[in-house]
Amino acid sequence: MKVLVINAGSSSLKFTLFSMTNKEVIAKGILERVGTDKPQFTYKPTGKEGFEGDCSIKDHVEGLKLICEKLTDPEVGVISHLTEVRAIGHRVVHGGEKVSAPVIVDDEIKNVIRECIALAPLHNPANLAGIEACEEIFPSTPNIAVFDTAFHQTMPAEAFLYALPYELYTENAVRRYGFHGTSHDFVAHATADFLGEKYESLNIITCHIGNGCSMAAIQEGKVVDTTMGMTPLEGLMMGTRCGDIDPAIVTWLMDQGKTSAEVNNIMNKESGILGVAGIGSSDMRDLLKAVEEGNEQAQIAFKMFTRRISQYIGSYAVTLKRPDVIVFTGGVGEYGRAVREEVVNSLAVFNTRVDQEVNEATYGTEAVISTKDSRIKVVVMPTDEELKIAQSAQAILEA
Amino acid sequence: MKVLVINAGSSSLKFTLFSMTNKEVIAKGILERVGTDKPQFTYKPTGKEGFEGDCSIKDHVEGLKLICEKLTDPEVGVISHLTEVRAIGHRVVHGGEKVSAPVIVDDEIKNVIRECIALAPLHNPANLAGIEACEEIFPSTPNIAVFDTAFHQTMPAEAFLYALPYELYTENAVRRYGFHGTSHDFVAHATADFLGEKYESLNIITCHIGNGCSMAAIQEGKVVDTTMGMTPLEGLMMGTRCGDIDPAIVTWLMDQGKTSAEVNNIMNKESGILGVAGIGSSDMRDLLKAVEEGNEQAQIAFKMFTRRISQYIGSYAVTLKRPDVIVFTGGVGEYGRAVREEVVNSLAVFNTRVDQEVNEATYGTEAVISTKDSRIKVVVMPTDEELKIAQSAQAILEA
Repeated sequence: MKVLVINAGSSSLKFTLFSMTNKEVIAKGILERVGTDKPQFTYKPTGKEGFEGDCSIKDHVEGLKLICEKLTDPEVGVISHLTEVRAIGHRVVHGGEKVSAPVIVDDEIKNVIRECIALAPLHNPANLAGIEACEEIFPSTPNIAVFDTAFHQTMPAEAFLYALPYELYTENAVRRYGFHGTSHDFVAHATADFLGEKYESLNIITCHIGNGCSMAAIQEGKVVDTTMGMTPLEGLMMGTRCGDIDPAIVTWLMDQGKTSAEVNNIMNKESGILGVAGIGSSDMRDLLKAVEEGNEQAQIAFKMFTRRISQYIGSYAVTLKRPDVIVFTGGVGEYGRAVREEVVNSLAVFNTRVDQEVNEATYGTEAVISTKDSRIKVVVMPTDEELKIAQSAQAILEA
Repeated sequence: MKVLVINAGSSSLKFTLFSMTNKEVIAKGILERVGTDKPQFTYKPTGKEGFEGDCSIKDHVEGLKLICEKLTDPEVGVISHLTEVRAIGHRVVHGGEKVSAPVIVDDEIKNVIRECIALAPLHNPANLAGIEACEEIFPSTPNIAVFDTAFHQTMPAEAFLYALPYELYTENAVRRYGFHGTSHDFVAHATADFLGEKYESLNIITCHIGNGCSMAAIQEGKVVDTTMGMTPLEGLMMGTRCGDIDPAIVTWLMDQGKTSAEVNNIMNKESGILGVAGIGSSDMRDLLKAVEEGNEQAQIAFKMFTRRISQYIGSYAVTLKRPDVIVFTGGVGEYGRAVREEVVNSLAVFNTRVDQEVNEATYGTEAVISTKDSRIKVVVMPTDEELKIAQSAQAILEA
């Protein structure tokens, strides 16, 4: 059984084709700058030579056609006919309150995606465009939508409500939704498997630390809190996002003459590591290099970045009452040894510290990086959102 | 030695006259609706009959003159001459980064208060008006300014900086300042005394829970973090303030057509308990009554309110590494048994729980309310900001 996974952005179209029998990627690639006059295409079939370069497509439909041509091409292709694709899994960012699990796309689900455009104005329209392109090109293949927000829908009201006027929730859907759900879901389950424990009996704190960063507190299989909120801005310090700030700073900035678009741009694109460290980069690798060179502003940025993760671990440990496992994933979580070391060694209150040697040896691979006598187990678990989407699609078809 | 303490608001003037030999209040009172056509005066001399009613004053100077007349009045007065007042202590809200301790007011300090008007537009002008009224009426008595922000000035950069562009800090003073400093300072010291411990060797988490709410993490005598930020809006859920929210909600609200003043009003005056519980009140007593009556929305509000305190305790426990004491103070902290019980019993991860009997018996009095085998001691300690200001003024005069 083969499943195609589509992640459609406003100007990009990422795809991964899986063979589900052995969970292997048989081809993947990305179209970038879709809608501009210089679209780029990267195509990588497993075991064959791929390519990278210009292409001439004008939208997602033409982009998907191009991808399908390559997938079925006698030379660079990996399947002989499109009907071999039994299901298409789509990453959709925002499903609001109505979706709490992967679903087969029908008119109702398309309406849900449309209704949530107000909550995810950049992502949901693109995700929908990806689905509609597939409906056109694969008219008889089921499309399955996997929502970034769905995994967090188990949060209780006291976690998802803001202390704002209640009507903003009932009338305007202002609440915490949380994002990166597919990744939190994947690594939480994978960690339970890796440890040989039952997922439903563990309390897990998952830390997805990449360019975007979020954490989730998972109590016996159910998310009870997460750091991202109504939008992916809240919570941790990120590559270019500020995370938590005094909300009065936002109105203060606007009183200085900035528009809401300008303030949003500052908070989303000019803040985080990029804004604080003063090294002209939002990349953790550059930050770590500057820290090692003794750059004081970079050192402050590093301390802020790790302190925020440590403090949320403390918050979530209280909520979980018995935190069993902390999981690091995402680019920084999987490869950023210095970040993991700083965070884990800050957990003295939980008698938890890093096994220096194992942490140093762990680079994009799964491992328990805490010492044997640590009260909380700390695990590094590579995430795979595409595989999770493919598995979700497969599970729905088989059900 | 007698010290007068002045807390001047934009339309109020609160005073307390202390005899410092026995730390006793010898008279106190408040002028309200100053600047309106119906100003109100409440005057309470200790051991004599006071009064409450209309008065005819037009500003803070005339108000202070009226107060001084009463204090020296042959019948209702408590001193024979104003020269008996050896110092005047003033509550000033915002001292920015330049003041980290109580100081004698001179031109330089008045400039600091003026410079910080941008950061506390409602409070600092009124505080300055109170000082200037005293300079006119007590020309040879020293004025001492005690700043709400000063106690928090020991925070390290990683705690006081936001993950916003660094220039907002260096050029616009955008950073975490923290408030309620005089109260956190007072109860932290008083708790160490009460426990018979050395203040500088304790790690303390202070929870000032009233209509306004804030917490501080104090490591061996120095604040290392606090929940309020650039303004008193950030952090905990309060009577009418929202505390932490996704900052993108602020721009979203403005995109719905609201002005920054309207959004600030929503976040500061229509949120918190008032906004969530739907009982038309911001008062914890009303909330607890509704909770007992089974009102579900009120129950959610109560859970949100206490959960936020519990989670910040977790955060600060991580930062302090060895949290020794949690202190409750402020109106709700001193009298709200149900709030204390809910918060303390959420701290299972720290093997800490409430001594039910002692907690029930503790109502505005100092006590250790945790069980003997709790890992963290939990103390209720009534705050007294006026006394702290008077003591600070005395200490400066004697130095």
